[in-house]
Amino acid sequence: MRHNAPMSLSLPVAVDAMGGDFAPDEIVAGALRAHEEHGIPVVLVGRPEDLTDTGGLEVLPASQVIAMDADPGSSVRKMKDSSLVRAAEAVRDGAASAMVSAGNTGATMASALLRMGRIKGVSRPAIATLLPSPGGTPTVLLDAGANSECSPSWLVQFGQMGAVFSRDRLGVDVPRVALLSIGEEPGKGSPFVKEAHAAMAEASWTGASFIGNVEGRDLLTDAVDVVVTDGFTGNVALKTLEGAMKSLMAALLTSLGERPEAAAAAQMLGPELDGLYRQFHPDTYGGAMLLGVRGVCMISHGSSRSLAVENAVRAAAEMAEADVVGHLTEAVADANSD
Amino acid sequence: MRHNAPMSLSLPVAVDAMGGDFAPDEIVAGALRAHEEHGIPVVLVGRPEDLTDTGGLEVLPASQVIAMDADPGSSVRKMKDSSLVRAAEAVRDGAASAMVSAGNTGATMASALLRMGRIKGVSRPAIATLLPSPGGTPTVLLDAGANSECSPSWLVQFGQMGAVFSRDRLGVDVPRVALLSIGEEPGKGSPFVKEAHAAMAEASWTGASFIGNVEGRDLLTDAVDVVVTDGFTGNVALKTLEGAMKSLMAALLTSLGERPEAAAAAQMLGPELDGLYRQFHPDTYGGAMLLGVRGVCMISHGSSRSLAVENAVRAAAEMAEADVVGHLTEAVADANSD
Repeated sequence: MRHNAPMSLSLPVAVDAMGGDFAPDEIVAGALRAHEEHGIPVVLVGRPEDLTDTGGLEVLPASQVIAMDADPGSSVRKMKDSSLVRAAEAVRDGAASAMVSAGNTGATMASALLRMGRIKGVSRPAIATLLPSPGGTPTVLLDAGANSECSPSWLVQFGQMGAVFSRDRLGVDVPRVALLSIGEEPGKGSPFVKEAHAAMAEASWTGASFIGNVEGRDLLTDAVDVVVTDGFTGNVALKTLEGAMKSLMAALLTSLGERPEAAAAAQMLGPELDGLYRQFHPDTYGGAMLLGVRGVCMISHGSSRSLAVENAVRAAAEMAEADVVGHLTEAVADANSD
Repeated sequence: MRHNAPMSLSLPVAVDAMGGDFAPDEIVAGALRAHEEHGIPVVLVGRPEDLTDTGGLEVLPASQVIAMDADPGSSVRKMKDSSLVRAAEAVRDGAASAMVSAGNTGATMASALLRMGRIKGVSRPAIATLLPSPGGTPTVLLDAGANSECSPSWLVQFGQMGAVFSRDRLGVDVPRVALLSIGEEPGKGSPFVKEAHAAMAEASWTGASFIGNVEGRDLLTDAVDVVVTDGFTGNVALKTLEGAMKSLMAALLTSLGERPEAAAAAQMLGPELDGLYRQFHPDTYGGAMLLGVRGVCMISHGSSRSLAVENAVRAAAEMAEADVVGHLTEAVADANSD
């Protein structure tokens, strides 16, 4: 990512210390490292009695915890003193620059949407996630799961928002935006995708370009910068990728352990295998961003360890500093005024 | 696969010698190896003037070739003497036990559908493909691309047909059938997927069981035998997997070449890397099968080399011998009589 200079943020990043499979310990450890090693101001949000060993990080008290498998809508409405709701309120109230959670994804989205509100003109917020593109710039995929059913015009807006994100987060000057389909020709795909293609081809792309359809095999390549799809397809593609990486890595490690000579050779390949693992592991990017709400909301994997949290906090701080929300607001207003 | 005994087929497998990126040479080479090494009777279908060096394989003449990017419907209707149409007719007329093509996928489906016809009671034929499941039995995924939009009841039938295929092709006694979604709970997914879930939960599963939803990350695992989805989502998932495997393999090979010590160690890992490559390469399974037509139709990847063709011919012969079409006919009739 572009993030080398120390952060000059004055407002802290609000980290939901209670969300995630390894909360609060791994969350606190990651937040602390982001603070100590990158100078990012952080406030932990959660139950003070569970957050006694924070290494000096400030705690914003919240007495409730939304469970990983709780119903998002009703829990956000009912649990007004939950760590997720309090984190979103801190952003809304100008007490925090951004929020980060590895907790219940649906509840994270609902908290951000209900407390921060939508950017004016945004039809639906979408989850933008980064996919590794070996040797190149990561690909932004959206919607990765916020809206399981979409209208074609929402996909146009996802593309416009994804282009802003690609620029602010990855430094791509004129992002190439494409529609995920099952063939490159405009006539390929479901009726919905054909309609979306027509809408995207007609839309105006300020500071970005629409390059047509791409297929699943293009996701991890440098052929495209932003790939747009509905949240069902996007989530299936994302989890298919995660499963494939896990499965291939596991098969590789198993096969390397079977012959003594192979195990010895594999030992020597430590740096390479480690680099490969990091290159393809979701923790490297530290999470996805919910685009379209009036604040920075980073959504981390439920299985996030401290490294993923550290990277998510860094990304959140970077996005707040880059004013991605301001840029999204302008881009949506421009597109809607055409 | 289950295929060890020599084939006792009397009818030949009709191989479209003109279809595929490397036709006719790689197609002929693969067909010849299936014949010579596995005793499978084969007839090549194509232009005699392009098939002079067949190693003794018989040629069924067809003067036309449907291009890889031709429109499937109109080319099948117009090109009555094409290799694809003639291959499908050979199966229909009892001159061949099965057909295999690495050519235009849409045209292969259209030829099979129009010439062989549908199995009675089948709403829509679907493409069933095999996904590697390291250390376990491959997963059958369908529809992998025949129908970009589906009705929920078609998905029930895809599951019933996929279970027959899992049994006949992979020897799974009571296949576990699941629906591809974005969460395990029945309430997760798009409205279409929720409806499909309800229909699958209500359906009768003779010789198979419906185990609910699975996610993209389960595709390459042993948690499920048959995964059902619409042809758009299935094709995206399949191509995403192919892209991920290619990308990870390429990154691995690049990283192994960067340090001299790593290159030396990688040399020693030849058997492991080779095994891994074969385990995950689509050529290993030799292609997908179109389920629901009145004959065995194997669809190979356009990029098939001779190994893929050899494996596809073996799979086709095995499926003809196992009478998978008879079993599909019974299963669909049983389900429709409930």
